[in-house]
Amino acid sequence: MTDRQRNTPFRHELAQQLRVDSVRCSAKAGSGHPTSSMSAADLMAVLLDGHLRLDYAEPENPRNDHLIFSKGHASPLYYSMLKAVGAITDDELLSFRRFGSRLEGHPTPRIPPTDVATGSLGQGMPIGVGLALAGRDLDQLPYRIWVLCGDSELAEGSIWEGFEHAAYAGLDNLTVIVDVNRLGQTRETMVGWDLDRYAAMATAFGWHAITLDGHDLDAIDAALSEATATKGKPTVLFARTMKGRGVAAVENQPGKHGKPLTDPDQAIAELGGERDLTVEVARPASDAQPHEFATSGGELPTWAVGESVATREAYGEALAALGAQRGDVVALDGEVSNSTHSDLFAKAHPERYFEMFIAEQQMIAAAVGMQVRGWTAFASTFAAFLSRAYDFVRMAAISRANLRLCGSHAGVSIGEDGPSQMALEDMASLRAVHGSTVLHPSDANQTAQLVAAMADRPGISYLRTLRGKTEVRTPPDEPVHIGGSRTVRQAAADRATVFACGVTVDEAVAAAAKLAEEGIAVRVVDCYSVKPIDAVAIRRAAMDTEVLLTVEDHWPEGGLGDAVAEVVSPITGGPPLIRLAVREMPTSGTPAELMAAAGIDADAIADAVRRGLGS
Amino acid sequence: MTDRQRNTPFRHELAQQLRVDSVRCSAKAGSGHPTSSMSAADLMAVLLDGHLRLDYAEPENPRNDHLIFSKGHASPLYYSMLKAVGAITDDELLSFRRFGSRLEGHPTPRIPPTDVATGSLGQGMPIGVGLALAGRDLDQLPYRIWVLCGDSELAEGSIWEGFEHAAYAGLDNLTVIVDVNRLGQTRETMVGWDLDRYAAMATAFGWHAITLDGHDLDAIDAALSEATATKGKPTVLFARTMKGRGVAAVENQPGKHGKPLTDPDQAIAELGGERDLTVEVARPASDAQPHEFATSGGELPTWAVGESVATREAYGEALAALGAQRGDVVALDGEVSNSTHSDLFAKAHPERYFEMFIAEQQMIAAAVGMQVRGWTAFASTFAAFLSRAYDFVRMAAISRANLRLCGSHAGVSIGEDGPSQMALEDMASLRAVHGSTVLHPSDANQTAQLVAAMADRPGISYLRTLRGKTEVRTPPDEPVHIGGSRTVRQAAADRATVFACGVTVDEAVAAAAKLAEEGIAVRVVDCYSVKPIDAVAIRRAAMDTEVLLTVEDHWPEGGLGDAVAEVVSPITGGPPLIRLAVREMPTSGTPAELMAAAGIDADAIADAVRRGLGS
Repeated sequence: MTDRQRNTPFRHELAQQLRVDSVRCSAKAGSGHPTSSMSAADLMAVLLDGHLRLDYAEPENPRNDHLIFSKGHASPLYYSMLKAVGAITDDELLSFRRFGSRLEGHPTPRIPPTDVATGSLGQGMPIGVGLALAGRDLDQLPYRIWVLCGDSELAEGSIWEGFEHAAYAGLDNLTVIVDVNRLGQTRETMVGWDLDRYAAMATAFGWHAITLDGHDLDAIDAALSEATATKGKPTVLFARTMKGRGVAAVENQPGKHGKPLTDPDQAIAELGGERDLTVEVARPASDAQPHEFATSGGELPTWAVGESVATREAYGEALAALGAQRGDVVALDGEVSNSTHSDLFAKAHPERYFEMFIAEQQMIAAAVGMQVRGWTAFASTFAAFLSRAYDFVRMAAISRANLRLCGSHAGVSIGEDGPSQMALEDMASLRAVHGSTVLHPSDANQTAQLVAAMADRPGISYLRTLRGKTEVRTPPDEPVHIGGSRTVRQAAADRATVFACGVTVDEAVAAAAKLAEEGIAVRVVDCYSVKPIDAVAIRRAAMDTEVLLTVEDHWPEGGLGDAVAEVVSPITGGPPLIRLAVREMPTSGTPAELMAAAGIDADAIADAVRRGLGS
Repeated sequence: MTDRQRNTPFRHELAQQLRVDSVRCSAKAGSGHPTSSMSAADLMAVLLDGHLRLDYAEPENPRNDHLIFSKGHASPLYYSMLKAVGAITDDELLSFRRFGSRLEGHPTPRIPPTDVATGSLGQGMPIGVGLALAGRDLDQLPYRIWVLCGDSELAEGSIWEGFEHAAYAGLDNLTVIVDVNRLGQTRETMVGWDLDRYAAMATAFGWHAITLDGHDLDAIDAALSEATATKGKPTVLFARTMKGRGVAAVENQPGKHGKPLTDPDQAIAELGGERDLTVEVARPASDAQPHEFATSGGELPTWAVGESVATREAYGEALAALGAQRGDVVALDGEVSNSTHSDLFAKAHPERYFEMFIAEQQMIAAAVGMQVRGWTAFASTFAAFLSRAYDFVRMAAISRANLRLCGSHAGVSIGEDGPSQMALEDMASLRAVHGSTVLHPSDANQTAQLVAAMADRPGISYLRTLRGKTEVRTPPDEPVHIGGSRTVRQAAADRATVFACGVTVDEAVAAAAKLAEEGIAVRVVDCYSVKPIDAVAIRRAAMDTEVLLTVEDHWPEGGLGDAVAEVVSPITGGPPLIRLAVREMPTSGTPAELMAAAGIDADAIADAVRRGLGS
């Protein structure tokens, strides 16, 4: 710290510089959100100068505080801060939004020390809750989490999932700063400048709430100090600000959202001209190392061929075993742990299990926050309910997050609970996530090996598990790997190939046995890895057999059928591909009734093979 | 009303019957949630007997109140109520969860008067907000909306989106009854029985909150009367209840969630045995007709061939014109109306425009609620942010809802804003919704005709629009229809066919022009209808040309490539299909830079055609 810092005049100058630079970089880009940046400049100036403890020169320092711009569109401010701390040059600042620049329209981890991508509102805050959990309960380090929110995004329910969970967990290492500039994209927010209303909402949710003038530098300083001093609960600052603060042409004006200023030179002059201040941010006080959990080794579970085991149970057992081998593995669940069987992990490693209750968005956000700090997080719920957090998974891919998801109760084979509980779109939606991995094992031994593989897999990986038991066919010592498949039966005389996954493997095997009695040899390939799919096995089948079939407990779109078609369709003159999938809205019933009704059981497969072969 | 009703002893008997029948039907089914039903039986008995105004014999009566079981797993209670009002027989009650029964594991509209499917928690309540908006602002009828929530689902952020919007809108025709039985599936909720905490939360959000003993029939009666009498704001009842109330073996016990009672006979005896009461529910008091909005006729907008128009603008203009033709058309937006251009509808028809702020789940839920009453609701936001409400769209399909979605700013062609704002998975996720329609017009004239077609389309339809301008190629008088396509150029000598949609049509046309100069004739098909796709045009191209290509501003999975492959892959010995799509995570840049980087621009298409033809 230099004596020119940590005082109000310096902070004012710094704030004005942040405004000027926000105006400059967005003017140069010809787009961006300078007015949404200017409202929060005073808040961020004081945070940088006296409260944040972040070594920008060593972004990987585990003791660093974390700053998340939940209002990611205020990226001009964020990047202006990076310039002010010396992390980027003025030239790089002015590359904002240009192709090739690290300074994208909304922040991503391409520019350190950015932890996560933001820009879909309401996500940075619950991710901050996850980081705060990681800090207190996993790393066990005194770093703090600071989140800058816009007021418009407080309409997102995910924010209130975050408010509830953070209070429940008593996360006093978390401070949320809300830039209440009142004006959204097209109009005033629902709450406007009613700070007391906001404070009542947060207080009722269990937070310490402070209202203040977000342009009063001393008030900001006091509020941030109060936040740090508050124990046992998180603190939120509701700061009354003006959008476009400091430039009369835009200050507190509607219709000025998301566009550069029309006269930037005039605006810069009005803000006192360009400055070249550097702010020395405090470094982490502690030199403690992140906590490491003790491990006890052991092996992954295996099952004897012929046993009947639900893959969801195998998931729980394998995850618990993995947790014994590796101290970095943690688990989260959406209050269905005795269904997904993450309860087996929770029982074995209670200190690394996080109950997220029925708040799937917060669950995924927390997992994203934990992986920022290197924890290997597995998050589970019913596969159908992962759809609740789809935008969070989408953004996690942009965050380059390593995230492991497990969705149980896939497909109509769950039976009586009915369609609301049946995931029939999960493979489609999760295949369409950048860099994702989609796995759907048919038996317990496959499941255990894939759970272990997921822990080492970068990006977003998804394991789809079954409610009911399936027969263990994979020998315990047979390798199972991402991108692989398992040929369950084959012969030189094979005329058709059936590609199946999960529960339909049992059905395909039964169909093949029936057809064998009729003299029709059928190959059965268990595609436990749906993305990446085993292209070699598919191409071989396309050469060897006259007709290909896919059968899946999923809608026809986006699942196994499309994955196989992606390999087959570029082949010139290949065999036809027939798809069996769920085509009508299912109801309640027994698994067997529902699979028969959907046309994905053994009888339907056998019929389709016969038709495909013209016999 | 008979004199044996509307008194406490009758209500007690009725509540006990609801409990007994909940126990009976789930015992018969061998699964279900009797204990979650028993906690709310007193609340629902009093609601039926004295507060609800619903003609169960005429479920289509527009003046009926609406009752939504947001806690859909309490279906045994819901169906027991249907028996008690005479809407179903005891035999049908005992068909619960059986294949073929209308009484599914969670309620769906297959059993009248059920408005929507529930079972994914936190959805019934915001749908109730939509119905309340419809009642007050569209139908302009005095019916009331009653929602039964569980306490576990209050952890879902969507519930708080509902709380905020309902208070903002001042919906005093909405009453939410929360069955605070404290116990979730595996443990106590975060708030437990702290009713004051809940009341503070709801009050801070702007509701009238009442706390009560949910087993005190007179207190329930008073609270429901107070709710009806409260003006200017919605009312919520936080009712302290016990899960499994009335049967010692399960009452207020953990570990009793989602399973039938082990000794139903003993439980029934403890509850006083079977009863055969019928409750006469009040009919709607009013005989008013639903409001109809005046129309002024007019035509859909058209544009001259050669104009440059953004399809998002065409959406707004077409929707405004459609609103002039049809009084049933309404629009909702997630606070980006000047981006999606639903603002044009808002300006033309302010009384039928609903600003939903940045709360996409509540926006979709509101649209679902409005269509329950027959309103033709179009909901729009950035296509990327529709992913926030994916579970709501999934459930809307189970609700057999007619829902029109418009997602703007599709793909990398938006340019500088970066990947958080780019929809690249929307076609995949929305194709994988049961019975859905996915449309992606390339020009303004297509857009206008498709908007009109969506209004008549049952199920869930989705229109994907572009940020930038594209050339109008479709003549104003050329018919455009769902399931169709437009052959932009073709000749007898065509050697390759390029299937494009949206922004890539311009690129495909440019590529074809370039290749024509090289002597390579290329057919270009504009697949503005991605689901259903024009199978006839694709099969014709597969017969006519040596190679097929798809090019889309979308991830490779689940979009146009998969849609075309679905038609091509069953063909024996068909031509190869090559897919161009976005394969790397995009950044910021100009649209042209980003489309070039993604390999989906004219140059990339021309190269791919050459390679595909081996030239």
